[in-house]
Amino acid sequence: MGHAYDELTGIWTQLHHLGHLQAIAGWDQAAMMPPKGAEARAKAMAEMEGLLHRMRTDPRLAALLASADGEPLDAFARANLIEIRRGWRVSNALPQALVEAQSLAGARCEHAWRTQRPANDWAGFLENFREVLRIGREVSQRLSDATGLAPYDALMDQFEPGTTSAEVDRAFGDLQQWLPGLVAQARERQSHDTVIEPTGPFAKAVQRAMSLEVMGLLGFDFDGGRLDESAHPFSGGVPEDTRLTTRYREDDLMQSLMGTIHETGHARYEQNLPRDWLGQPVANARSMGIHESQSLSFEMQLGRSRAFAGLLAPKLRAHFGDQPAFEPDNLHRLMTRVKPGFIRVDADELTYPAHVILRYGIEKRLIEGSVQADDIPALWDEGMQSLLGIDTRGNYTNGCLQDVHWSGGAFGYFPCYTLGAMYAAQWFAAIRAKTPDLDAHIARGDLAPAFDWLRENIWTQASRWPTAELATRATGEPLNPQHFRRHLEGRYLG
Amino acid sequence: MGHAYDELTGIWTQLHHLGHLQAIAGWDQAAMMPPKGAEARAKAMAEMEGLLHRMRTDPRLAALLASADGEPLDAFARANLIEIRRGWRVSNALPQALVEAQSLAGARCEHAWRTQRPANDWAGFLENFREVLRIGREVSQRLSDATGLAPYDALMDQFEPGTTSAEVDRAFGDLQQWLPGLVAQARERQSHDTVIEPTGPFAKAVQRAMSLEVMGLLGFDFDGGRLDESAHPFSGGVPEDTRLTTRYREDDLMQSLMGTIHETGHARYEQNLPRDWLGQPVANARSMGIHESQSLSFEMQLGRSRAFAGLLAPKLRAHFGDQPAFEPDNLHRLMTRVKPGFIRVDADELTYPAHVILRYGIEKRLIEGSVQADDIPALWDEGMQSLLGIDTRGNYTNGCLQDVHWSGGAFGYFPCYTLGAMYAAQWFAAIRAKTPDLDAHIARGDLAPAFDWLRENIWTQASRWPTAELATRATGEPLNPQHFRRHLEGRYLG
Repeated sequence: MGHAYDELTGIWTQLHHLGHLQAIAGWDQAAMMPPKGAEARAKAMAEMEGLLHRMRTDPRLAALLASADGEPLDAFARANLIEIRRGWRVSNALPQALVEAQSLAGARCEHAWRTQRPANDWAGFLENFREVLRIGREVSQRLSDATGLAPYDALMDQFEPGTTSAEVDRAFGDLQQWLPGLVAQARERQSHDTVIEPTGPFAKAVQRAMSLEVMGLLGFDFDGGRLDESAHPFSGGVPEDTRLTTRYREDDLMQSLMGTIHETGHARYEQNLPRDWLGQPVANARSMGIHESQSLSFEMQLGRSRAFAGLLAPKLRAHFGDQPAFEPDNLHRLMTRVKPGFIRVDADELTYPAHVILRYGIEKRLIEGSVQADDIPALWDEGMQSLLGIDTRGNYTNGCLQDVHWSGGAFGYFPCYTLGAMYAAQWFAAIRAKTPDLDAHIARGDLAPAFDWLRENIWTQASRWPTAELATRATGEPLNPQHFRRHLEGRYLG
Repeated sequence: MGHAYDELTGIWTQLHHLGHLQAIAGWDQAAMMPPKGAEARAKAMAEMEGLLHRMRTDPRLAALLASADGEPLDAFARANLIEIRRGWRVSNALPQALVEAQSLAGARCEHAWRTQRPANDWAGFLENFREVLRIGREVSQRLSDATGLAPYDALMDQFEPGTTSAEVDRAFGDLQQWLPGLVAQARERQSHDTVIEPTGPFAKAVQRAMSLEVMGLLGFDFDGGRLDESAHPFSGGVPEDTRLTTRYREDDLMQSLMGTIHETGHARYEQNLPRDWLGQPVANARSMGIHESQSLSFEMQLGRSRAFAGLLAPKLRAHFGDQPAFEPDNLHRLMTRVKPGFIRVDADELTYPAHVILRYGIEKRLIEGSVQADDIPALWDEGMQSLLGIDTRGNYTNGCLQDVHWSGGAFGYFPCYTLGAMYAAQWFAAIRAKTPDLDAHIARGDLAPAFDWLRENIWTQASRWPTAELATRATGEPLNPQHFRRHLEGRYLG
């Protein structure tokens, strides 16, 4: 390769090593750290963040990138250089003072939100949030200047590079046409079902044992990762050492179980990223939407299928004793019950996209400036009414104050959840085309047809191709939301 | 203060923040990390080690230190500057290539030692160890050049600054005069005792619960630390978040219990270092000998006292059920049983110093060059025979191959263990002088007289004073080994 390219990869390897320590410290902060460690940890991580930022904004990099462009690189190195440049461009688009102001305003707003949400205090929230939004708009403008994308698209590009809001508008616009009708039809059908709830309490230690067994069934490599507990479940750590967390409620075993299955999907993606390239950006997961497509492949495509319910049933009986609720058909009904509700994170598979469409529509207009922070509650009420028929007027706690994203200033992430659900359906359409008797395989505990396909087409491809090309190589077409519709109709009306 | 001084403290604060991440990653490596994370972690920590080394050897520091010397500093800043300079001098005394060679040779020797020790393979060990020793001598010479101390003293100075081998020779020489006789007398006395062993197995979870309860009794702040498991127990983390580990054997509850008490002593020192100064070297623990004096204050002075046995007994009964072994007098006999043996880490309070004297005598001569690596077995046999009457001929496994220190190239640390035991006895002589009925306090669970004294005189003093001054301020005299003798005679002949 070339000298400049080699120097760049050397610097990105250093960033990977230092980022490793930051990732483990971040996991520890959520899963292990006692409360009095918080202040010192925050300072340590901020120091490292500053150091990484200085490395990513070293003025020498511009010249190295320009030189590397002119060097004779193979296709792989070329792909890596694209990813190096993408990260570099984002880091250099934002002045350090703006990054710090954003971090500070976000931390302040989020901290106050923790008490404002239970207090239903929208007015109090608004005082901090106006500043968060102001900075978010400035950030979006700076990123827009650096990338040539529209401001909201430039924010989204950090999480879902290459996907524009025009595409999301098309996909979500279509979804919005048929989703409310499908929800109504599914609810009508399910109104005749009897669903038996599992009877608790379910001891944490037994739930953990059940989680570990299911992670094993799902192929998690315990020599390269762990399962622990945290207030908000996540998948963290580094590809070489993935750290999942879950939380246990003694009255609800399904929450931790489905959460663990979801996070295991994220983890297997990380655990199967190409080892030989680790340290280079081309070896990173493709995007957050593709990441969500893995967790949703595990949770929705596999985990909530009737065949998988048949696999879970004997394990549940072995861990918790026999209960009528553990009968496989009942389990499947439990896992596919449709019930419109206030809360996104508690939503079922079918109503979840409505929550995302609502937030996407609002945050996009907030960033574009066509609506203001004060307009959020009215937009929220209107959206929840039309999408799910739910009245949220005056209920900020379970309405527009429910999510942490906006308080922390994270605009542009929400679409990834539903893009992920759409991609997951597309992957499984391809898997079923290749293995028509997939359900029979699943029913006998043979998940290899799914995992082999995902490993070959998604996990080991990392960031080798732009998302649209990744999807096309894997399935013959870029994102096609029709697969999601077919999946939902098959499961809920089939 | 002065400009140069302020700039130095700023740099050392950065080192403190980055060192925090390194400390947590080190704890995680031993207590949490799955095996496949090892390689990436080693690389990440080496990257950080290199970064910290570059910061500590930045050529600008020499000028800053010289300028700061001429600035108007108060006594506190002056003490901090002494510590800054001490760390800087050590970092700059050793060329990067030598540090790397030492690390590599130590890692190779230690790795091979893990199989050579069980195989009793002294000849194989020697092949690697000669290089470790050669580098150790070069390091000692470089440190000697930088500090003006004799080569072995310069090594010891890294762990026990300000204490020379002449002082250690005096203290250990005296000890060597009376210790063998005391061991013989104590064994003669104990030969008439009946000691009942606790009957296992003891479930790990119950041992952990017992450990946590005893840590609570000993004042450990669980909001600022944790207890976990690792192959080799240690006290790690950072002062703001101390991480202890222990290991549990199902057939021996005393091992984890006494180990936990020992590590809790280290932890309380860290947890009570002065918060306002954290980040500056003056806020660090004074030395490894003083650190050991805290763990041994907890384990030996408090933990193995008759009064403390009375506190442990009901807790043991509550956790493990009633057993004759848990009768307080029997417990105390168990914890003070004297039995010369091969292994340092398994040694009782009375024979432990003999193991340290042996190693100190050998490693000092190794570094001085008056003996060679090949001479170690003969010196070991001779020392074990004369100090403890034990024949180790041909038994390298439980003789000169037993410790990890030399294989890793850590020369100069061993004396700290027994210096710590001596200081602990000196602290408790002062505590008993102030609180003559200390045992009555302990017996009723009131450990405050001991902890208040240690907090005021040791913990919160950090590195404010040289060790001799710390001891003199606390007890009216520098290290005086007679307190250790009186303590041992009181406990084992009293």
